[in-house]
Amino acid sequence: MTSIIVNLPEQSYEIAIAPGGIDQLGEMMSNLKLGKKVLLVSNPTIFKHYGQRVLASLEAAGFEVVSCNLSPGERYKTLSSVQKIYDTALENRIERSSTMVALGGGVIGDMTGFAAATWLRGINFVQVPTSLLAMVDAAIGGKTGVNHPQGKNLIGAFHQPRLVLIDPEVLKSLPVREFRAGMAEVIKYGVIWDAELFAQMEESKRLDQLRYIKAELIEAILNRSCQAKADVVGKDEKEAGLRAILNYGHTIAHAVESLTGYRVVNHGEAVAIGMVAAGQIAVKLGMWKKEEAERQDALIQKASLPTKLPDGVDIEAIIESLQLDKKVKAGKVRFILPTQIGVVTITDEVPSDTIREVLQAMQ
Amino acid sequence: MTSIIVNLPEQSYEIAIAPGGIDQLGEMMSNLKLGKKVLLVSNPTIFKHYGQRVLASLEAAGFEVVSCNLSPGERYKTLSSVQKIYDTALENRIERSSTMVALGGGVIGDMTGFAAATWLRGINFVQVPTSLLAMVDAAIGGKTGVNHPQGKNLIGAFHQPRLVLIDPEVLKSLPVREFRAGMAEVIKYGVIWDAELFAQMEESKRLDQLRYIKAELIEAILNRSCQAKADVVGKDEKEAGLRAILNYGHTIAHAVESLTGYRVVNHGEAVAIGMVAAGQIAVKLGMWKKEEAERQDALIQKASLPTKLPDGVDIEAIIESLQLDKKVKAGKVRFILPTQIGVVTITDEVPSDTIREVLQAMQ
Ligand SMILES: NC(=O)c1ccc[n+]([C@@H]2O[C@H](COP(=O)([O-])OP(=O)(O)OC[C@H]3O[C@@H](n4cnc5c(N)ncnc54)[C@H](O)[C@@H]3O)[C@@H](O)[C@H]2O)c1
Ligand SMILES: NC(=O)c1ccc[n+]([C@@H]2O[C@H](COP(=O)([O-])OP(=O)(O)OC[C@H]3O[C@@H](n4cnc5c(N)ncnc54)[C@H](O)[C@@H]3O)[C@@H](O)[C@H]2O)c1
Repeated sequence: MTSIIVNLPEQSYEIAIAPGGIDQLGEMMSNLKLGKKVLLVSNPTIFKHYGQRVLASLEAAGFEVVSCNLSPGERYKTLSSVQKIYDTALENRIERSSTMVALGGGVIGDMTGFAAATWLRGINFVQVPTSLLAMVDAAIGGKTGVNHPQGKNLIGAFHQPRLVLIDPEVLKSLPVREFRAGMAEVIKYGVIWDAELFAQMEESKRLDQLRYIKAELIEAILNRSCQAKADVVGKDEKEAGLRAILNYGHTIAHAVESLTGYRVVNHGEAVAIGMVAAGQIAVKLGMWKKEEAERQDALIQKASLPTKLPDGVDIEAIIESLQLDKKVKAGKVRFILPTQIGVVTITDEVPSDTIREVLQAMQ
Repeated sequence: MTSIIVNLPEQSYEIAIAPGGIDQLGEMMSNLKLGKKVLLVSNPTIFKHYGQRVLASLEAAGFEVVSCNLSPGERYKTLSSVQKIYDTALENRIERSSTMVALGGGVIGDMTGFAAATWLRGINFVQVPTSLLAMVDAAIGGKTGVNHPQGKNLIGAFHQPRLVLIDPEVLKSLPVREFRAGMAEVIKYGVIWDAELFAQMEESKRLDQLRYIKAELIEAILNRSCQAKADVVGKDEKEAGLRAILNYGHTIAHAVESLTGYRVVNHGEAVAIGMVAAGQIAVKLGMWKKEEAERQDALIQKASLPTKLPDGVDIEAIIESLQLDKKVKAGKVRFILPTQIGVVTITDEVPSDTIREVLQAMQ
């Protein structure tokens, strides 16, 4: 078992990476001095695979558990789904000392975290991420929230989990397309923070399916990605500065996701497209070497992730939609741009024309 | 102008008590280095009285203001009303640096605060309380939230305002029943914290209408109540301990409000009933002198507030509903009980039978 600590002034917490760990969840939570009651939130697919094991582990440790399964998918990441968590919490008298546990991908994690942040003005919360993307990214760092019909993650709160438990074995049931989506965030850490991780991925023959990747590389992917996220969040919990670098590729990704109604590309695929675009923008502005951008794009392709815009997305609509991004300050769109592999910089001086040219070349 | 500071580790803020102050809101906000955009939230009644003056003041100071009026009343303190604030925020591109301003009573203040806490994971927030209750209580201390159809304030967040501006002159248009409701919280401060304020109110011939109360007493009521709330919140922002004393009278109040569907008694009236009950419980348990409880009840009556339960409320339903209170820990209901005027203690050792007897005597 690997243990990574997210160091925060108010309350630090552990990311435990443990094969077979879901059977030890109850035991691990027992050490945290939580109340007896647990509300387990998941979706029907994931619950069918792992729900009973998680319930058994929690009950063996003496917790009283109720569960709530939400409709799967990004388009259900809404206040109405959160309302269902509230209703279950009310019916089962979930108290201040109780805990909400998220068993699922980033969608379940973000909504459960938001419900935990706002039920009785904040109760305990534990993340058991089951998708690669949630393991290396969404489950760590306390950003929680839901989508507004017209914009992603516009409604939310900061609320840190008390524990993040990653069981790499659950990745076996993850659909391949979702695995690749997670790889987009892993490649992101290579580009923005960890040149060594980037190099390790370059050495691997394939990155597109779990079963073709060596066990040591999977271990490195999980450990180094979680460490990168923990480092950044520990230095800047509320995104006053540094944490913004985690949004590399996300500015354009959010626009693409929202313009395609969250149906055509998933979050990771959108991030892959966004990283290609950001890389090209950096090259055009003379900030990044063309060869390094090409190495990035090669990794993205090795993970079978898209490097082109989805058919039919209107480029002017993307540029318009960037204005709606949470990171806009005084109307200026902020971009995270690489300067070398492992290092990025933040700028709000990207001319619209540069964005337009780059996107046109990606059609 | 009186200025009271709420001292908090992350960000302290001012409570400014200034007759005619709503015309200076823009100027005061200018000193806080906020972004240009403001979303003003109010209700049609209050907006009709003061909206234009507030808009003029904000615009004169260079802010770009949009406004959003919500249906008035406790029964509209819901996620759907907050959704309207989100929609207005989206349409008008309210950004991280923008500010939401609440112009209204506690209902508007709690919802606007919750929207500000959760829009883009937290933006600036200013309180301009217009009811007595909101001035001395709801607007101060960062508790924000909405009701669940089956329980009050079950959904919420802590989010401190950047400024609380109290203009006592707006009390002139406050309906008399609402004025009395605010007096309930003022009497509460006398009982839990400030024996001097209690004594000053005992000296006044009337407490039931603004126009019968001397200007100096109104000044003392506002200053001393705000100071009491600021003191308690400054010592215990997140209600780890001391802050719970502010819930004096509220345990039973919440049950009564919810059982009568928030239609029969308003919050302050429910608190008056709750204080009478808590006082009687303290007397029955031998913790408080009967004569002091009678002095409390006399003040409550002088403010024309109820000391009996509303007709038809079922006592067993109250006792059942107490179990749903946010403050329940391991099934035990927590009570705040006076031991002398100006001093209370916290206990979870009140037998149900004592509660039952006291409530029966209040039928
Ligand atoms: N909070 C943050 O910091 C943060 C960071 C990045 C992304 N996110 C959010 O995360 C979301 C995306 O997360 P995601 O990619 O995990 O999507 P997801 O939660 O929708 O999961 C993807 C799909 O995989 C299924 N699945 C997950 N684990 C499985 C398993 N082990 N076996 C079988 N099926 C499984 C899910 O049911 C779902 O259908 C987005 O909403 C994004 O905004 C949040
Ligand atoms: N956040 C906190 O710490 C806290 C503390 C106490 C109470 N509260 C909440 O506050 C709410 C009660 O607040 P309230 O008593 O102000 O109720 P309210 O907001 O409903 O206002 C009462 C009525 O008076 C009207 N009104 C307000 N100011 C007026 C004015 N100057 N002129 C004319 N009409 C005016 C309103 O339109 C409303 O109809 C409850 O929801 C309660 O839960 C919150």
